[in-house]
Amino acid sequence: MRYAVGVDLGGTKTAAGVVAEDGSLLFTGQIPTLNRDGGGAILDATAALARSLVKQAADAGFRVEAVGVGSAGVINADNGSVLSATDAILDWAGTQIAAGLAARLGLPAAVVNDVHAHALGEAWLGAAAGTSTSLLVAFGTGVGGSLIVNGKPLLGRHFVGGHVGHFASPHAFEHGIPLPCSCGRAGHVEAIASGPALHAAYLRHGGSPSLRDARAVFDAARLGDGLALAVVAKGSAAAGQAVGGLINILDPGAVVISGGLADAGPLWWDGMERALRAELLAPLAGVSVVRAALGASAAIVGAASLVLANVPSLTNN
Amino acid sequence: MRYAVGVDLGGTKTAAGVVAEDGSLLFTGQIPTLNRDGGGAILDATAALARSLVKQAADAGFRVEAVGVGSAGVINADNGSVLSATDAILDWAGTQIAAGLAARLGLPAAVVNDVHAHALGEAWLGAAAGTSTSLLVAFGTGVGGSLIVNGKPLLGRHFVGGHVGHFASPHAFEHGIPLPCSCGRAGHVEAIASGPALHAAYLRHGGSPSLRDARAVFDAARLGDGLALAVVAKGSAAAGQAVGGLINILDPGAVVISGGLADAGPLWWDGMERALRAELLAPLAGVSVVRAALGASAAIVGAASLVLANVPSLTNN
Repeated sequence: MRYAVGVDLGGTKTAAGVVAEDGSLLFTGQIPTLNRDGGGAILDATAALARSLVKQAADAGFRVEAVGVGSAGVINADNGSVLSATDAILDWAGTQIAAGLAARLGLPAAVVNDVHAHALGEAWLGAAAGTSTSLLVAFGTGVGGSLIVNGKPLLGRHFVGGHVGHFASPHAFEHGIPLPCSCGRAGHVEAIASGPALHAAYLRHGGSPSLRDARAVFDAARLGDGLALAVVAKGSAAAGQAVGGLINILDPGAVVISGGLADAGPLWWDGMERALRAELLAPLAGVSVVRAALGASAAIVGAASLVLANVPSLTNN
Repeated sequence: MRYAVGVDLGGTKTAAGVVAEDGSLLFTGQIPTLNRDGGGAILDATAALARSLVKQAADAGFRVEAVGVGSAGVINADNGSVLSATDAILDWAGTQIAAGLAARLGLPAAVVNDVHAHALGEAWLGAAAGTSTSLLVAFGTGVGGSLIVNGKPLLGRHFVGGHVGHFASPHAFEHGIPLPCSCGRAGHVEAIASGPALHAAYLRHGGSPSLRDARAVFDAARLGDGLALAVVAKGSAAAGQAVGGLINILDPGAVVISGGLADAGPLWWDGMERALRAELLAPLAGVSVVRAALGASAAIVGAASLVLANVPSLTNN
């Protein structure tokens, strides 16, 4: 049996685990991401976390052979570096994650964007297991996704593939004016269907500023607040319409929905799925649309899968 | 050098040619598709066309080893049959194209949908040559496309992949009501951006019924007809917005635009490209968007590429 450390490196926390090639997750650990301290400090802390996991595994008789990372940011998966990133992690762009971890740990390392790692995990062991081609879409702070084709994420020419929150949504226009999107454009799915977009819509239409985030809007909706209900209905319809269109374009074997909104219960899910199914071409009517199954471990096992599949070649280097 | 016959089997005509593995197109022929006579008659006629090309090649000393077909309809590329088709070709659904041609010709045969064949041709020898992953979108009687990933079309679980005309477009709503789409749904890109959709919009907004099709609307627009200009502007903006969103999602190495509207000149193209570039994420600003280069031969050479790549294994059968 082969073993790898999988790392899920996000804007606020970094979780990691030792993963066996049969998919079992043997040891796990978590640290805060040093998101104000720059790439070097983050790599030092991540290497320390990985080292402790490698040691725990060794003490139990398991030899870790490589490290796979799913990281926030646009990741050049060919050389394992950060092409661009938001301010959620300061000075993250330019960081050589793979080379930096390999040097610190003496183990080969590979990196992809964290949403791709998430999708790889669900495709390997979770909600899309058993399909060669699947689509994961995450609705949370942003809207992102990953298309797995024959077991590999579609990374794209500039490693931007999977930005499924950034296409036009009819719901993202008010009085004919497109709503501003986090990407600098306007009228995109993310501008109406993300958690912050739901909250912004609530405030924009006169909702109480005492509700501080999307979670509070959901709570108000569950208590019968009419505006909150309307905002959730709109956001979930935009989400479902977007995913339905993606299904027509890509015809994936399985569709996995994840993120905070997917976990918010039937209030969001039912509206999302109704709008999704209203978009589908006739031959796709039976497509399976399911919630992500692995929770927080998806990106860890998905990141590990990057190197578990490649370990023979990597160890020949 | 290996040789194959490539066939482009459309609703009104069937074109074919002998293609060498270096991409040269040596002999060509064309017949009307017997679109009222059913699958058997169409296969008989297609086999006769292929046979005459095989003979021409043999007379010149070239041995044709296999037949590749790009066909109208949703095609099961695994077994070479027609899963579904519109009434443009009567009784086409259920036709065993690959087995039927193989039995008639004594040559191995393979089939994909004609838009995928078109995209394969452009990716091999045309506007997307040199890229491993490219997106072709065709704007004509309908709106369709094909994503080539690592040299192969993304066919999808139900062979529906590439239906890029069937996702929501903000332009496909009038007074908040979605325009009906050919697929039975509403509010889709094809409902505002296809040629027939442009013509329908012209009539719907009070244009003269003496203009009989999209071509006439374009002619009127070029002569300064205000409504015709507005309809073309709307359709081209919808087209560009849709393709721009697809680029953000897929990040292809090259984007090829084809079909009758792409050939209608700058009146359509400039509005399309402006709307497309207004959608792009920052890292994608430099993406190459080009007109299809091969014209009618794209689907022929693309169809031939299906079997030229596979000939060694096929001839071992």
